[in-house]
Amino acid sequence: MRQVIECIPNFSTSDPKVVEQILNELKDTKKAFLLDYTFDSYYNRLVVSFIGDKQSVLEAMLKMASKAIQLIDMRTHKGQHPRIGAVDVVPFVPIKNASLEDCVKLAKKFGRTLAEKYGVPVYLYGEAATKPERRDLDWIREGEYERLAEMIVKPERKPDFGPAKPHPTAGATITGARKVMAGFNVNLGTSDLKIAKKIAKALHSKKGGLSNVKAMAAYIPEKNITQIGMSITDFEATPLYRVFELLKVEASRYNVPIIGSEFCGLAPLKAIVDVAAFYLKIDNLTIDKVLEVAVQNALERGKSFE
Amino acid sequence: MRQVIECIPNFSTSDPKVVEQILNELKDTKKAFLLDYTFDSYYNRLVVSFIGDKQSVLEAMLKMASKAIQLIDMRTHKGQHPRIGAVDVVPFVPIKNASLEDCVKLAKKFGRTLAEKYGVPVYLYGEAATKPERRDLDWIREGEYERLAEMIVKPERKPDFGPAKPHPTAGATITGARKVMAGFNVNLGTSDLKIAKKIAKALHSKKGGLSNVKAMAAYIPEKNITQIGMSITDFEATPLYRVFELLKVEASRYNVPIIGSEFCGLAPLKAIVDVAAFYLKIDNLTIDKVLEVAVQNALERGKSFE
Repeated sequence: MRQVIECIPNFSTSDPKVVEQILNELKDTKKAFLLDYTFDSYYNRLVVSFIGDKQSVLEAMLKMASKAIQLIDMRTHKGQHPRIGAVDVVPFVPIKNASLEDCVKLAKKFGRTLAEKYGVPVYLYGEAATKPERRDLDWIREGEYERLAEMIVKPERKPDFGPAKPHPTAGATITGARKVMAGFNVNLGTSDLKIAKKIAKALHSKKGGLSNVKAMAAYIPEKNITQIGMSITDFEATPLYRVFELLKVEASRYNVPIIGSEFCGLAPLKAIVDVAAFYLKIDNLTIDKVLEVAVQNALERGKSFE
Repeated sequence: MRQVIECIPNFSTSDPKVVEQILNELKDTKKAFLLDYTFDSYYNRLVVSFIGDKQSVLEAMLKMASKAIQLIDMRTHKGQHPRIGAVDVVPFVPIKNASLEDCVKLAKKFGRTLAEKYGVPVYLYGEAATKPERRDLDWIREGEYERLAEMIVKPERKPDFGPAKPHPTAGATITGARKVMAGFNVNLGTSDLKIAKKIAKALHSKKGGLSNVKAMAAYIPEKNITQIGMSITDFEATPLYRVFELLKVEASRYNVPIIGSEFCGLAPLKAIVDVAAFYLKIDNLTIDKVLEVAVQNALERGKSFE
């Protein structure tokens, strides 16, 4: 496969039977390949990552969306993660031999088709946004599913495709294009959601925190702890170690220990390498100094010599 | 290329003209690809990393060795790194679709040919060793080039190939097979080589330090500092963060700051990932959770689904 585009749809479900049926649609699509998926009951959300070329990604995504619209009823949905619809967010990401422009076109094609076929209102975000404020997912998602009917009729919230009216069970969908980002969750040794929310606020870019960082707090009932869920949209400009170290500082203010972390989805290599370089005090560690990358590059380049 | 074997020859030179001529031999070999090379005047040593299949690696290695034997005169060689000959150590490492056994055979073939063609005595080490004590490079290298004539006539130091007599200008060569290892250098904020040697000793496996770690101290004149040069032979069992943290502890005993680090050669991905997982407190970070690896695996596997 020459061209590789990643798609990371977020669906509003954590029902294993629904998850399985959505994933089956991907399985049945030729030239589309699953990379990873996670779902949690406290977020009540399924995040899938898969790759393919333009055609196969679009085909798989439309089939998965169709199944999700059929099976998910937003009227009874509860979850700690903000959401506006059954097929909540669908970003397309260029990985190899594809540009952001290609992904913008793909997002528009997906959005238009979804609106026409299923009557779901669709917003474009990120690089595909039609207005500057719509680049921001949170701006579009304000009011969530519960207040969608009231928000969608405002002129500034008119959908890019489909009716200015929520789909009764599927709400609305947000799709767009973006670069690779890092999702990172940190578990706190406290069950106090108020403290977790203060720490999340301290990190969030729009609330006085770090550039390129979005942070939210959630309570995890099974473990009786709280979690800071973060997206780092530009992890080259704002490296992960900086986010983690600031989080440690803000948590220590409340004597809250960090008990563990996890990547939400896959970990970009550059983010990992920058973390290792920081803690080991290496000045010049680049991706191409990783053995496996150097081997791959040498084999792809054929013969090369400095 | 289906089969990938890495070869990391260490030559006793840091003369840029000699380095260039040795590398030209690799350049002229089809299907052999340079990954990386470094040389330092204080070690007076050139370390090259290249890959290929069995045939191309052997061909390139014999040509580079021939050039090194022709150009390097050990009688005038000085350097802080232990060495026994012009073509000092030649390990073969399986990377893809190759086994350690394949690399043992390759090392024996290389050693036998080198001895026959150039009259250089050759020792086998690592997985290719013919006696248990010869698995250890340092055991074979005891006495270095300067005392080779006296050591080589001892029955236990009889070479595996070639005469029991040093080559007059090229000394002897050690070749063998091993797994991927990590080379890691840490710069200390002191010019006191005695202190650096104490720290190196504290880390070295045979001197009461960490398993799988070899450590040596060197003085770097250009920077007027010292350096701990380390090999971590099994960085899965003894992860890099443990080595680094112990080094910090031992250095703090002498109030010596760590001013920087570097990988010597290429950095194995697993070593990097383990460092990131430790400092970020991630329990379950595996190589296949790295985006680039997941993409590569998915493309190679074709279709797969859990």
